[in-house]
Amino acid sequence: MVKTSRAAVVPKPSADLIIEEYEVPELQPGAALMKVGLAGCCGTDVHLWHGKLAGVPYPLILGHEVVGTIESIGPRPIEDLDGNELKVGDRVGFHDVTDTCFSCYYCLIADAPTKCPNRKVYGITMDSTQFPRLIGGYAEYLYLKPGTHIMKLPDHVSFEGASAVGCAMPTAVHTVLRSPMTWGKHVAIQGSGPVGLMIAVLTNVSGAASVTVLDKAKNRLEMAKKFGATDILNIGDTTLEERKEKLREISDGHGPDIVYEATGNPKAIPEGVELVRDGGSYTICGQYTDHGSVEINPHLMNKKHLDIKTVWGSRTLHVYRGIKTVAENYDRFPFEDLVTHRFSLDDAQKALEAQEKQVSLKAVIQPHGD
Amino acid sequence: MVKTSRAAVVPKPSADLIIEEYEVPELQPGAALMKVGLAGCCGTDVHLWHGKLAGVPYPLILGHEVVGTIESIGPRPIEDLDGNELKVGDRVGFHDVTDTCFSCYYCLIADAPTKCPNRKVYGITMDSTQFPRLIGGYAEYLYLKPGTHIMKLPDHVSFEGASAVGCAMPTAVHTVLRSPMTWGKHVAIQGSGPVGLMIAVLTNVSGAASVTVLDKAKNRLEMAKKFGATDILNIGDTTLEERKEKLREISDGHGPDIVYEATGNPKAIPEGVELVRDGGSYTICGQYTDHGSVEINPHLMNKKHLDIKTVWGSRTLHVYRGIKTVAENYDRFPFEDLVTHRFSLDDAQKALEAQEKQVSLKAVIQPHGD
Amino acid sequence: MVKTSRAAVVPKPSADLIIEEYEVPELQPGAALMKVGLAGCCGTDVHLWHGKLAGVPYPLILGHEVVGTIESIGPRPIEDLDGNELKVGDRVGFHDVTDTCFSCYYCLIADAPTKCPNRKVYGITMDSTQFPRLIGGYAEYLYLKPGTHIMKLPDHVSFEGASAVGCAMPTAVHTVLRSPMTWGKHVAIQGSGPVGLMIAVLTNVSGAASVTVLDKAKNRLEMAKKFGATDILNIGDTTLEERKEKLREISDGHGPDIVYEATGNPKAIPEGVELVRDGGSYTICGQYTDHGSVEINPHLMNKKHLDIKTVWGSRTLHVYRGIKTVAENYDRFPFEDLVTHRFSLDDAQKALEAQEKQVSLKAVIQPHGD
Amino acid sequence: MVKTSRAAVVPKPSADLIIEEYEVPELQPGAALMKVGLAGCCGTDVHLWHGKLAGVPYPLILGHEVVGTIESIGPRPIEDLDGNELKVGDRVGFHDVTDTCFSCYYCLIADAPTKCPNRKVYGITMDSTQFPRLIGGYAEYLYLKPGTHIMKLPDHVSFEGASAVGCAMPTAVHTVLRSPMTWGKHVAIQGSGPVGLMIAVLTNVSGAASVTVLDKAKNRLEMAKKFGATDILNIGDTTLEERKEKLREISDGHGPDIVYEATGNPKAIPEGVELVRDGGSYTICGQYTDHGSVEINPHLMNKKHLDIKTVWGSRTLHVYRGIKTVAENYDRFPFEDLVTHRFSLDDAQKALEAQEKQVSLKAVIQPHGD
Repeated sequence: MVKTSRAAVVPKPSADLIIEEYEVPELQPGAALMKVGLAGCCGTDVHLWHGKLAGVPYPLILGHEVVGTIESIGPRPIEDLDGNELKVGDRVGFHDVTDTCFSCYYCLIADAPTKCPNRKVYGITMDSTQFPRLIGGYAEYLYLKPGTHIMKLPDHVSFEGASAVGCAMPTAVHTVLRSPMTWGKHVAIQGSGPVGLMIAVLTNVSGAASVTVLDKAKNRLEMAKKFGATDILNIGDTTLEERKEKLREISDGHGPDIVYEATGNPKAIPEGVELVRDGGSYTICGQYTDHGSVEINPHLMNKKHLDIKTVWGSRTLHVYRGIKTVAENYDRFPFEDLVTHRFSLDDAQKALEAQEKQVSLKAVIQPHGD
Repeated sequence: MVKTSRAAVVPKPSADLIIEEYEVPELQPGAALMKVGLAGCCGTDVHLWHGKLAGVPYPLILGHEVVGTIESIGPRPIEDLDGNELKVGDRVGFHDVTDTCFSCYYCLIADAPTKCPNRKVYGITMDSTQFPRLIGGYAEYLYLKPGTHIMKLPDHVSFEGASAVGCAMPTAVHTVLRSPMTWGKHVAIQGSGPVGLMIAVLTNVSGAASVTVLDKAKNRLEMAKKFGATDILNIGDTTLEERKEKLREISDGHGPDIVYEATGNPKAIPEGVELVRDGGSYTICGQYTDHGSVEINPHLMNKKHLDIKTVWGSRTLHVYRGIKTVAENYDRFPFEDLVTHRFSLDDAQKALEAQEKQVSLKAVIQPHGD
Repeated sequence: MVKTSRAAVVPKPSADLIIEEYEVPELQPGAALMKVGLAGCCGTDVHLWHGKLAGVPYPLILGHEVVGTIESIGPRPIEDLDGNELKVGDRVGFHDVTDTCFSCYYCLIADAPTKCPNRKVYGITMDSTQFPRLIGGYAEYLYLKPGTHIMKLPDHVSFEGASAVGCAMPTAVHTVLRSPMTWGKHVAIQGSGPVGLMIAVLTNVSGAASVTVLDKAKNRLEMAKKFGATDILNIGDTTLEERKEKLREISDGHGPDIVYEATGNPKAIPEGVELVRDGGSYTICGQYTDHGSVEINPHLMNKKHLDIKTVWGSRTLHVYRGIKTVAENYDRFPFEDLVTHRFSLDDAQKALEAQEKQVSLKAVIQPHGD
Repeated sequence: MVKTSRAAVVPKPSADLIIEEYEVPELQPGAALMKVGLAGCCGTDVHLWHGKLAGVPYPLILGHEVVGTIESIGPRPIEDLDGNELKVGDRVGFHDVTDTCFSCYYCLIADAPTKCPNRKVYGITMDSTQFPRLIGGYAEYLYLKPGTHIMKLPDHVSFEGASAVGCAMPTAVHTVLRSPMTWGKHVAIQGSGPVGLMIAVLTNVSGAASVTVLDKAKNRLEMAKKFGATDILNIGDTTLEERKEKLREISDGHGPDIVYEATGNPKAIPEGVELVRDGGSYTICGQYTDHGSVEINPHLMNKKHLDIKTVWGSRTLHVYRGIKTVAENYDRFPFEDLVTHRFSLDDAQKALEAQEKQVSLKAVIQPHGD
């Protein structure tokens, strides 16, 4: 029986990470202990390290993108979302959002559970000074609270493959499901970061007639080609008019049926309105942090007769479908290649630094080595 | 048989209207001649008078909101949209948009027929120097081209009642149909011009739990109360925070489920995003003319997880349902009261002046008197 | 502090009800004790009495349609669905379905939480020999388990008004929300039992152009007129062809846009397919119990290009919207008139007998008198 | 200039086909003359030959699945649906349904244009004794009436590839668009005739997690594997329970999310209700002809909480998307292999006989040889 677990802890915003050793708590009914296989180092982790998100408690064990093995199970059997009992030794992922209450206005009435005020997120909003302490993925072991939605990983999906898609894939699943995607649509995607790439995967899998990814980072655009992009457009090399013209060419003269925004840059929004065809659809998921306002012409929006959706957070459905999608399309896309850097738990801070400097596409922490 | 028809013609932009007498053309198969009962004087007519819309031919007979009586029918029987043969003497309205091609990408593939490039509009885009000349409503007679979608007016709906709703009602129908309106929703409407009032009617008829109309014109807000508003908010007297607070109070603490924009003012857009509840819906139909850009915060849009629709033009469906709605709810709303001023054909220019100065809520022209 | 509560218990299927006295259990965190105001005697209760539903434990305290007053609250504050803290003395209703797990395939992935295998229903599927025993409404007090979704009743809604709509209203809400109802639609409803009447209320509130209720019970059809029906059709007096003709007359010649089934009779299904217009919608919610097969012509279904939905159970959303609808339309419909018979707890068996013989439209039990 | 055209004519129901020579009429504005490349011999043609469809005029030139080359164009330029001008020599297909009126209740109000009473179909409902006579595809030349919706065939799509998909593909497109298909769904298809195969193609292209085709014809099931089926089930070899069990296995234990019916056999309907998972979707398009009634249990339908759609005919959108889909997926599926038999115009009757005896999967007529 595992007694203790080492963890990399952010003691306070912007301070150096320290390695602490915590006792493994007794498992409540419905809980499980996960031996961490890989913990992804997400761009959000860098923001959390620097204390840029409101309402986050410190000291904090980072790590919300985690895959691993079930080490032990509490005194009640637990099931995955397909109704299969989970066993010790199973390789699993889980929805990092938990405690969605399914009792409030947003959960039950407004059909907007990602706005539930009671949600908690592993590695982000739970306090490592409180029971069960081991509540982030930068650690040898992670406590999976009762009610956490756990998914078994198919045998052919490696920890790298599963963790590579991280929290980007559920966001992408949510985004594509909120859009009127069907086979044969012409798609444009603003941004080729992890979310943009996963939208490219999903729209390609959905039978898009074309998937054009727009970015200014050449290497990311090259990566996009491996993840479903049929065309790429470098916004650093082209004018807006050239991009519109190119997208019309690709789409039988009409412009993209659906534009997805996954950039984090407010300026993408007026450009997206320009790019989408008349009567088309624009789905926005990249404006997660507040980078201020942008000028937009409402007349153009109105004249184009658009369907605009904005997308906040993800539900367990999106994690479930994300993992299924990876498994079903594991031969089509090199998911493992997204992981470019690996670090030991002791070097967790270096992982954050690599992610901050964008040296890595995706850095992961391996608390137990290979 | 009628031989000639007088018409009020705009000879060129901003010039005084002149009265001309045109020959009534022979009716083609499928055509009909309408004796004009009332022609509405729409805000757009003022813009047209001043040459502010691109692609409009002059000389021009204004008048796209027209009701009247069938004077004669061409050599082929014609039907209304319910499949009833139309007869001489029938009181009718019609869809002012015609020649939608039902053969192009927008009509058949993109499901966006209001973007069909072949559409023509009575009183706006058809040239009164060409056959059949009598192609606008500021005239004694109007030529209804083959293929015009005509609707019989129910007996209990007066010309005033039908013309009062003008082109605003179809726009409102289109707008409400594009929103997820069901009974029990809390609704806010930005703007209490004709379109805003008709949205108030439609959402009230649809069983809204509350219909709050926002405007700064006190008299329009009073009118809104007669047309379905359950609450009004004067944006001249209140701060944004006060309006948000008031709307939350009305809606069990959550904010409106659906906000409709019908103002023509770009500043309404960021306010609408503020007003709508998290996970709600925002439907924009008032930005028909280009009044420039506005600052908007995409992060707020994204965080609120919204469903935003923009609405362009109207289809025959919307006219059909508009007239049915007026007929079915004729006792509930004082549609006729919207007509505040009447003018003879000779005084058509005065009607435009009254509309321009907003002396009238709705001015109409009666080419044949009462 | 209340120590004990009397309850009317079904000891075993078809046995006479007996009055037992149970200890009131200590309240868990999140639980509350309700002083029962009225418990509706639903048609399902008669089936339960006779042991006709599978998987039901006996001895059983019947009563799933319950309104009352909060007598006491456990050691944790509880909120209603609008986020307001509930207080002792509040008049409340609640969703009789509880323990929906929000963890399984049906809850999270299939978007079909009414198929969740973990659901429990007050007064139906919970065993009165187990803690907390007081788990049905035919009792002086009812134990509201933690996680039960409770709604405050507005002051102007009486216990009669709230309980009258019973479990029929949530079913009706679910049914209408699954149909493409918008204002101006022509509606036909098969069956004028409680569910049919509530569908009439909801479609009328939603602005239907016509609401025709079909049944063979004359008194129920008369009742339908008070609850939103604009037309009635007695299927005992008319042929199918006559009904189709009449429905076409009412709907401008086309037939109803939406037909709702709420009969419990398999024969209603082929008739519903006949009644609905081409391209229309048919929504079926009345086939809750298995009354065997019926002959249907798939070619007719296919040729009519239909949208058919079937509706199982209800979610908390439907209860919430049901109570709001009653409150918002309390002046328009005589909800209280649905309660035709009242019984004391001691006479609970007489209530079942009255319901069984259809002497009563709706019988209720008043455990504490008026 | 072509002066005359030979055509294979059905003089009256069940009579031998005769070869007639007709004058090529002068082209009206908007019309074109097509040199027939291939005319598909559809199962419907066999029914038409035997006079089994109501409202069909004789003598009749069969052939509604036609591809060919534009021989000449009338005195007005014509465009394809992407807005490109069509030229002499272009290889084209077209929507065999024409004259959809876009003026009636079904076209404009009911959103059900496939129920438009004014529709005409090449090779089926137009009379070859009337101008322009050459109105079916079993002929050297075909008159494309003004308003026919024509599509250019991409260079890499052969006449075989385009005609192979025939009228089955548009039906399949319509069917899949009416279902809630998204990537990752488990799909079952009843029937592996041309429509079932095309549904397999479309759901596979749309990223289905599995596509199981059910039929009893072994060779058709083998063909299904080439057209997108990931699994096949022979209904001749298995019991219903075995099929249900197998489908659950394929779909993580739940059963198919979507079942499509494309059999023409009424018995498929109750089986489809059994196969689909709770809360799933069932889309029916195969019941085009009346083969009588079938017993169905409405309680099972109701309990499963289903979304059932029936699909009638196809719109130009479906032809457009069908041809695009073939072109975009030409390397993935061996469309040309569907054509198993070729006949000269003189042997048109043999083509019908081969199709009748199901010797051929798809027979085509080549009026001009290879």
